[in-house]
Amino acid sequence: MKIAVLGTGMVGRTIAGALAGLGHDVVIGTRDPQATLARTEPDMMGTPPFAQWHAANSGVGVAAFADAAAGAELVVNATNGGGSLAALTAAGSGNLAGKVIMDIANPLDFSQGMPPSLNPVNTDSLGEQIQRTFPEAKVVKTLNTMTASVMVDPSRVAGGEHSVFVSGNDADAKAAVTGILKSFGHRDVIDLGDITSARGAEMILPIWLRIWGALGTGEFNFKIAR
Amino acid sequence: MKIAVLGTGMVGRTIAGALAGLGHDVVIGTRDPQATLARTEPDMMGTPPFAQWHAANSGVGVAAFADAAAGAELVVNATNGGGSLAALTAAGSGNLAGKVIMDIANPLDFSQGMPPSLNPVNTDSLGEQIQRTFPEAKVVKTLNTMTASVMVDPSRVAGGEHSVFVSGNDADAKAAVTGILKSFGHRDVIDLGDITSARGAEMILPIWLRIWGALGTGEFNFKIAR
Repeated sequence: MKIAVLGTGMVGRTIAGALAGLGHDVVIGTRDPQATLARTEPDMMGTPPFAQWHAANSGVGVAAFADAAAGAELVVNATNGGGSLAALTAAGSGNLAGKVIMDIANPLDFSQGMPPSLNPVNTDSLGEQIQRTFPEAKVVKTLNTMTASVMVDPSRVAGGEHSVFVSGNDADAKAAVTGILKSFGHRDVIDLGDITSARGAEMILPIWLRIWGALGTGEFNFKIAR
Repeated sequence: MKIAVLGTGMVGRTIAGALAGLGHDVVIGTRDPQATLARTEPDMMGTPPFAQWHAANSGVGVAAFADAAAGAELVVNATNGGGSLAALTAAGSGNLAGKVIMDIANPLDFSQGMPPSLNPVNTDSLGEQIQRTFPEAKVVKTLNTMTASVMVDPSRVAGGEHSVFVSGNDADAKAAVTGILKSFGHRDVIDLGDITSARGAEMILPIWLRIWGALGTGEFNFKIAR
């Protein structure tokens, strides 16, 4: 499948690399490809420069948001939550119409101090904001409840015995995303309901951050025991 | 131990019955014991009248909030989240001073429509509100992330292979609550940190409600796979 992954951070790189490894035709979208590839220093979070990753993953294309989305059948939103609407707007509503947007971002809000809070939250969610802004796209919220390495290789944690959620209004879109999740090795995909259920999936982040602190590793996941 | 359980709903009854069964000296606190015992009809949620439960659990005392709290070494807040501060205020700050408050309530807000949202949320929590209002008490948030039957008998779900969280400022209080949790059969007790981590534990409720809908049963629980 032709897939655009919007976002050049650790999450975007991890997802793009894994999808390419599964044989998909993957392009990473960024605001300014020249600038992204020209950077030579690690970013604030210590993430190595993109060009270094790209040299090792040269099968993945790099393009401006709109060019990446125009050629894609499915678009992954792997940008920071605070920049997601701007990135998708740059991708262009016409380039998103009729397509599945697999939204894996979290609307972390660092303006209220640490640990981050969420914005939007409670009676709205980033997933819903994206669906409202791009009504012709089919938004599916998923994977935002775990760290990037576990998203694409669930066997890294407890032999893969844990759960992943999907939220969205379109059954076919959720089935397409579920297919991708299963290709990563996820075995327990729970359909939470329509896109308003993205509120719950996003609101799991605050306890995720505390569990990360308690365990000293982000390599864990929620399993729905039943 | 002498334990007061504030709240006469399903959660309060389940916790009180289980604690009495473990040999504790348990009193259920309510606003007006006479009125509570006089009711003969099920409530709005279909919960049978309290007197019917009490007839089968006559070893559990029934008293006004203040009387229940005055005689207790540990107080369980099993009231509705929206009524918790009023109930604890009726119990009396003097009767709570120096004691552990095991807070198992959720601040569900039905005023924004269904499914319920939370209030407070995100940058505050019910657990923190209680700790601020009763600074001499030692609040420990716990058990709010699962249904009542699983709180007191974790073996009902997946052989007890799942997790429970504690949040609070006082290490001894968390140790005391952890002892109670283990006496119920909980084996994986995760210390999330200080009482501000109750935000995360409470914000898990929206996805809990969606999973309940997806599975058709409340008898599930979160396991932190790692």
